[in-house]
Amino acid sequence: METIGALVLLLLAARVSGMLMERIFLPSAVGEMLAGMVLISIAQFAGPFRPFIEGLPDNAALRHVADLGIFFLLLMAGVEMQLSETVHDARKSFAVAVGGVVLPLGAGILLGFAFLEDGPQRTAQAMLIGVALSITAIAASAKILQEFGLLKSETGRVLITAALFDDIFGLFLLALLSSFIVSGELPGAYAFAIMLAKVVVFFAVTGVLGVHVYPRISKHIHRRQAAEIEFSALVIVALGYGFLAELLGLHWAVGAFMAGLFMERSRIGKQPYKSMRLMLNALTAGILGPLFFAWIGLQANLTAILEIPGFIALLIVVAFITKVLGGGLAAAATGYGRRDSAIIGIGLAPRGEIMIVVISIALAAGLIDGNSADPVAHHLFSALIVMALANTVLAPLVLRTLLR
Amino acid sequence: METIGALVLLLLAARVSGMLMERIFLPSAVGEMLAGMVLISIAQFAGPFRPFIEGLPDNAALRHVADLGIFFLLLMAGVEMQLSETVHDARKSFAVAVGGVVLPLGAGILLGFAFLEDGPQRTAQAMLIGVALSITAIAASAKILQEFGLLKSETGRVLITAALFDDIFGLFLLALLSSFIVSGELPGAYAFAIMLAKVVVFFAVTGVLGVHVYPRISKHIHRRQAAEIEFSALVIVALGYGFLAELLGLHWAVGAFMAGLFMERSRIGKQPYKSMRLMLNALTAGILGPLFFAWIGLQANLTAILEIPGFIALLIVVAFITKVLGGGLAAAATGYGRRDSAIIGIGLAPRGEIMIVVISIALAAGLIDGNSADPVAHHLFSALIVMALANTVLAPLVLRTLLR
Repeated sequence: METIGALVLLLLAARVSGMLMERIFLPSAVGEMLAGMVLISIAQFAGPFRPFIEGLPDNAALRHVADLGIFFLLLMAGVEMQLSETVHDARKSFAVAVGGVVLPLGAGILLGFAFLEDGPQRTAQAMLIGVALSITAIAASAKILQEFGLLKSETGRVLITAALFDDIFGLFLLALLSSFIVSGELPGAYAFAIMLAKVVVFFAVTGVLGVHVYPRISKHIHRRQAAEIEFSALVIVALGYGFLAELLGLHWAVGAFMAGLFMERSRIGKQPYKSMRLMLNALTAGILGPLFFAWIGLQANLTAILEIPGFIALLIVVAFITKVLGGGLAAAATGYGRRDSAIIGIGLAPRGEIMIVVISIALAAGLIDGNSADPVAHHLFSALIVMALANTVLAPLVLRTLLR
Repeated sequence: METIGALVLLLLAARVSGMLMERIFLPSAVGEMLAGMVLISIAQFAGPFRPFIEGLPDNAALRHVADLGIFFLLLMAGVEMQLSETVHDARKSFAVAVGGVVLPLGAGILLGFAFLEDGPQRTAQAMLIGVALSITAIAASAKILQEFGLLKSETGRVLITAALFDDIFGLFLLALLSSFIVSGELPGAYAFAIMLAKVVVFFAVTGVLGVHVYPRISKHIHRRQAAEIEFSALVIVALGYGFLAELLGLHWAVGAFMAGLFMERSRIGKQPYKSMRLMLNALTAGILGPLFFAWIGLQANLTAILEIPGFIALLIVVAFITKVLGGGLAAAATGYGRRDSAIIGIGLAPRGEIMIVVISIALAAGLIDGNSADPVAHHLFSALIVMALANTVLAPLVLRTLLR
């Protein structure tokens, strides 16, 4: 009964809050996370329901549902990414993406080393901050472009393509980071080379299967004309890739993403792709996404803002400035004017979704130690979530001021 | 890694085995359950993988996925049931359904009392046998009709409608049974009246909401034209009904069924209904159904056949004969000839799906004691599964012999 009650409460709160956010041009994930954060914050005033609400973050069934959320969110992210079709002006977009990743990544790692106390997890945690800072939230960027009527413009398309490349970098970094996490310590040069080799092997194997084997199987399936066969084939491939990832010491989540990535409209046909996307969207945007983000909100602790205000403020500012500068300068270098470069840089600033998935994986793997005596390490998860929310809200505000 | 490996192994084995069964006109659930049964039976020959396979039935993540399977299978069963449209010749169908329920229900209860040793769970277990015997597997009946080209015939439609009524009786009996299970013992006349009242309250409240409130909300949602909103609204309602059921001391699963039941095509519109059904079908037939039925197969123990062969043989024969006689005689009484009555009676004999869901709920609730010294109680779960498989395979064989 507790689990049913928890699911209906979380899903309802997350959906209502998420749809309210969409009305003010913010991604629904912002509202869904806030729903979880508010719920856990008001638990002490909930009288007889206090134990119920305070037990939510540790509910095993919810944790499994959140894992399903990670799986389908990454599968969906892969499916939505139509590399061969939507990649627009790949050279420029790639340059923007690299600029928008390298600067935040480096700044995040430096910030980690400056603020985290010395310890066995310090390097991995600093890397996590860097990775978290470097992944743009595509959905939020798209919402900003939509608000300013730029979604179909040249600038808008370069921005979205750069954000897509961002996701791929992010997943690559997650693969690397997860091999850190599994091994539990900082590797030497030799061990690091082996890890890198495993990551390359994973992407090479799944890439070759995706380009050469998967289209043939899905063509065979397509002949049978049954959506449920196609859907279960996709999930089986994603699970298989996830298993391969785990065999190589990476996290299974990267497998789900790679399986989705090669479900391309041009290969499997327009109609099967459309129905697959409809189904995945209903499942992720309708149920698993809201539950996952609300569950993430439950894990966050807003008192972190009071305990390490300086670090969080710096994190937000550094995240914003490095993304705007990195993406914006790269855009300027490839020939964009000042206004378009600013739009591209600021448009890349929102963080969320894939980045939230990455830090939730780090949390589940024990990389973020909630019992640490070091206040920054102790509150790292909450700090990164506040950073993501702040940047997602900040970017459209700054852009509005700038463009008026 | 174990869970990812378990999921990919189970899903792949279940899908392949299920699709093979469909080629020989048997429901895919038969193949999916067999996949689980075979897997657990060959574990001892699996060498280094033996601990992995033998650990599958106790995997907590799999159990939660199986619970999701129950939830969506019953939601789907409710959604597929287009009471106001497909109900054909309701008077005749209802008579057939009553005949096909009362006789197996009574015979099952008697069989339970005759074979189960005296104990605190004896009455509830005998009731479980009766309920299990009384629920026809619609999908299997439809497959039989399809094989003989009778799906669109008058006989076929009466048969399917009767099987639909069967499901509703079955869910009503599950609601009653689950209140037995929750209270843990056989109630007195007064307590039984209260239980019955709770069941009636549940169906009345959800029924009134379904007829008067839900259509208005879904009309409002329909205006917003987003499949994921509709999908999450349906799931929220199902969870809410499930919560209400638990509050009343019933099992949450009946809530999922009732939520689906009032998602009628005529009320919510043809296109939303179609896309909802497509999504639910992909989710249940493609992923959650196969995983659920394979997981059920893992829980079964084929050595039961060697230990209580007499009981199992009798169970199969009684299940078959009472369903054929009950449904067939009722059909004859409403004016059908001998041939059509035989088709209707035999067509009702397959068991599975909803019946499997019911006994899995009883298993999870501890009603079936795997540690009992009484061999019949000890192997009751496996015996009922073998009964379901045997009747599902038997019915089309007998009908083929009869019609040639």
